[in-house]
Amino acid sequence: MANFKLTIQYDGTAYEGWQAQKRADSVTIQETLESALADLFQKPIVLTGAGRTDSGVHALGQVANFRVETNIPCYQMARAINVRLPEDISVIGVEEVNNDFHARISAIGKHYRYTILNHSLPHAYGNRYFYQSHYTLDETLVREACTYLEGTHDYTAFCAAGSQVEDKVRTVYRVNLLRKENYWFFDFYGEGFLRNMVRIMTGTLLEIGAGRLDKECITKAYETGERALLGKTVPAKGLCLKKVFYK
Amino acid sequence: MANFKLTIQYDGTAYEGWQAQKRADSVTIQETLESALADLFQKPIVLTGAGRTDSGVHALGQVANFRVETNIPCYQMARAINVRLPEDISVIGVEEVNNDFHARISAIGKHYRYTILNHSLPHAYGNRYFYQSHYTLDETLVREACTYLEGTHDYTAFCAAGSQVEDKVRTVYRVNLLRKENYWFFDFYGEGFLRNMVRIMTGTLLEIGAGRLDKECITKAYETGERALLGKTVPAKGLCLKKVFYK
Repeated sequence: MANFKLTIQYDGTAYEGWQAQKRADSVTIQETLESALADLFQKPIVLTGAGRTDSGVHALGQVANFRVETNIPCYQMARAINVRLPEDISVIGVEEVNNDFHARISAIGKHYRYTILNHSLPHAYGNRYFYQSHYTLDETLVREACTYLEGTHDYTAFCAAGSQVEDKVRTVYRVNLLRKENYWFFDFYGEGFLRNMVRIMTGTLLEIGAGRLDKECITKAYETGERALLGKTVPAKGLCLKKVFYK
Repeated sequence: MANFKLTIQYDGTAYEGWQAQKRADSVTIQETLESALADLFQKPIVLTGAGRTDSGVHALGQVANFRVETNIPCYQMARAINVRLPEDISVIGVEEVNNDFHARISAIGKHYRYTILNHSLPHAYGNRYFYQSHYTLDETLVREACTYLEGTHDYTAFCAAGSQVEDKVRTVYRVNLLRKENYWFFDFYGEGFLRNMVRIMTGTLLEIGAGRLDKECITKAYETGERALLGKTVPAKGLCLKKVFYK
């Protein structure tokens, strides 16, 4: 059977995240895609994602793979899948890959972007894609704090309670701030991220920028693993999985 | 009573357009705002909009005015209204204006933007804010056609069927194309626009750009008033009222 890699874009607003769930009343992105694939290939298809995204989180470059016997060439497959998908999920790339390619295990890094609108008045247009912060933010403080988040650390304090993962040491390659008018885009590049890690990092950067936390709280959080030292978990809607990296 | 001018932003996806309707099963932007104002001032408020926007059309700078006796200063009023509004409507400006200011009659011009994504693959992220065209578009043809849409003309052919308006002569000051990656932004500046006029203009520009219509169809449409000479009415979701101009 051939192994296919899909690159997927979605607006996560209407979904209970990526991962298929056992609850009957929830719709996930994985399930929606698997239904489209099952309809196309007329058999059940199991899709392996590069990683879970939480409810409300978006993606411009999620990756998943699946195996199937088919005569449909790659360049026709995206369209054949897309006509079976709702408007808020789309396949933007299909490649046939080596048999040992595994969307999650083969991944060597990920790029997430968190978008903040820093403005005093509410902004209705596009509000499902950013989180609005009313704080006055000190750019220098925020940029310094970004570098504190980089490196190889035990990110226990940056992980949602109840996570099943045991090893919480991760490597964050780069945390970058891009400003454009009232928008603050935080780009996080790392080998992998714990549950809520990017959202807790962003919440912490905002409170440091507002002068409500000192950047040393990050160092203390590495040492102690204490979640309470950090900023709040910002909402899912500002988060987007931009890219998954492979060798 | 003081006369207040509101500048309003909205994501029109969930609404049956601006205008209050008699149907009980529809929610409009005007009604939603009037309810928020009634709750704030504890009396019925009638809001006059600069113009109707259709179901699904967005606004970054819609304008409306209303009269009320109040001690709330302008700088506090936006916040007081916004806490009473859903996330997809927000007031971004409040000004006290002369008693003779009328949001519709005093307006001297409007700026609408229509956003096209010109790409072969569907794009899920943000798709409520653009319309996707799969045509290969010739930029030179499109730019030439833009100038044909400018001037003072009888725009009967560019108006939705069933419009109640009698005089269909309008002045379009400028039609401009801005390209940014795969996005084509069409900016329309005019004294006023007929129902669906911007959407029919955009649909016509797309078909001219794709070589399916000749730009002379516009001249013929002015002469004959024939809707069938022009391109299709593109969907509401790509349209945004950016600004209303006053003296």
